Amino acid sequence: MAIPSLQFICPEKTAMERPQTPSSPSLQNLTQDDLKKIAALKAVEFVESGMIIGLGTGSTACHAVARIAELLQQGKLSNIVGIPTSKKTHEQAVQLGIPLSDLEHHPIVDLAIDGADEVDTYMNLVKGRGGSLLREKMIEGACKKFIVIVDESKMVEYLGASGAMPVEVVPFCWKYTADRLQALFQAAGCVAKLKVLGNGEPFVTDNANYIVDLYVEKEIGDLNAASDLILRLPGVVEHGMFLDMATTVIIAGSRGITIKNK
Amino acid sequence: MAIPSLQFICPEKTAMERPQTPSSPSLQNLTQDDLKKIAALKAVEFVESGMIIGLGTGSTACHAVARIAELLQQGKLSNIVGIPTSKKTHEQAVQLGIPLSDLEHHPIVDLAIDGADEVDTYMNLVKGRGGSLLREKMIEGACKKFIVIVDESKMVEYLGASGAMPVEVVPFCWKYTADRLQALFQAAGCVAKLKVLGNGEPFVTDNANYIVDLYVEKEIGDLNAASDLILRLPGVVEHGMFLDMATTVIIAGSRGITIKNK
Repeated sequence: MAIPSLQFICPEKTAMERPQTPSSPSLQNLTQDDLKKIAALKAVEFVESGMIIGLGTGSTACHAVARIAELLQQGKLSNIVGIPTSKKTHEQAVQLGIPLSDLEHHPIVDLAIDGADEVDTYMNLVKGRGGSLLREKMIEGACKKFIVIVDESKMVEYLGASGAMPVEVVPFCWKYTADRLQALFQAAGCVAKLKVLGNGEPFVTDNANYIVDLYVEKEIGDLNAASDLILRLPGVVEHGMFLDMATTVIIAGSRGITIKNK
Repeated sequence: MAIPSLQFICPEKTAMERPQTPSSPSLQNLTQDDLKKIAALKAVEFVESGMIIGLGTGSTACHAVARIAELLQQGKLSNIVGIPTSKKTHEQAVQLGIPLSDLEHHPIVDLAIDGADEVDTYMNLVKGRGGSLLREKMIEGACKKFIVIVDESKMVEYLGASGAMPVEVVPFCWKYTADRLQALFQAAGCVAKLKVLGNGEPFVTDNANYIVDLYVEKEIGDLNAASDLILRLPGVVEHGMFLDMATTVIIAGSRGITIKNK
């Protein structure tokens, strides 16, 4: 068997995402991707041999997956079973030689590590802007501990403040569902848009559904109530608000690392 | 264009389903299918020309669809637009020449007519034992009026009393979702089973999902609370409890027709 390459390159976002005004001289040359990596490496310190680990998806989680593989390769971790939260992460983990399983064989996960698109003051999250949310929610909902890793740009005053709240919907009459979603949060100036690819075709999730992105102008109020309202719409499969799920948030910023625990 | 045949035969169930002890001599030879048809014909009396009509799915609704087609053919109804609740009903309606549309073009439906697997005292329903529930729920949730047509065998003391409560789930880790569903209603002696075809393969819905059937030994308690608990499980797409949706229930029994209104 070929030794899996550890040179897996996590996709770096554009320079647009670089922190604008780093205030600590020692960290001033760090890109946003460097910060993501710092948070990811810190999170992997919580991983112990023998654990069932939920492997997150996205540019930040990718660094954590790569680091776990590296520690396995070096013999510093052993007997790890990874539960990937997306097809993409599954591929990355296979490529890096991390032993994998699924929720059906391991319904209790010791620890999951994943990024987030937004984190509010109460450690509630928005996830899934990349289009992956249902499998993450299933797996991270089955975790004893869920460590969220973000760079400081992801911290928000309220969910929806920095962009879309994705909702996974069945393709059947998606436009009707989108209209009903928009109407739910009319008071917050909600606009619902189908997530599309560069060619204008709908983005299709790992579960063969569509994503409707909700953009709001202000807070939507009680998040648990909002969650139930969304889930009660028959065409909705799941939404990207992860409420009361994170147990630790690791935030990498230009002033260093902050760790928040529940 | 060929004149559509009006000889569409709605599938009749087995003799097992015949009412056991008809108490009215004049109705004593009626089969359960006759009763379904009686309820269906009564419901179609509420249809008026110009209406947008939700067309139900199943052995009872099939009679209503056939009757609407017959009245259109006879010129007794005109300018009807049907919104089919399943691929099967879509095919039937096309075959019978009923003009069709969808929720995106007609987000408000005047009237839907559909059968149910169970109806409780409060006109709450179980639907979807045939495997069709999501599209029905979307369309019947968009109706001004929703007439449910059943034979008397469908009336129950509590939802789940006569058989399965179907839940549509994403195929990904369906077993894990089934286990969580079963655990939700452990106190009611719940057993969750994947709906399978004769060959043992999973039944696949119109939306490419699976169905997990929940069997309970007794009442599950507050139905709205139960609904939210089910919908909060990430792998769940929708369930077959239709709560507070029916506006009229037409029950055909061996003693005649009963009409209940909200």
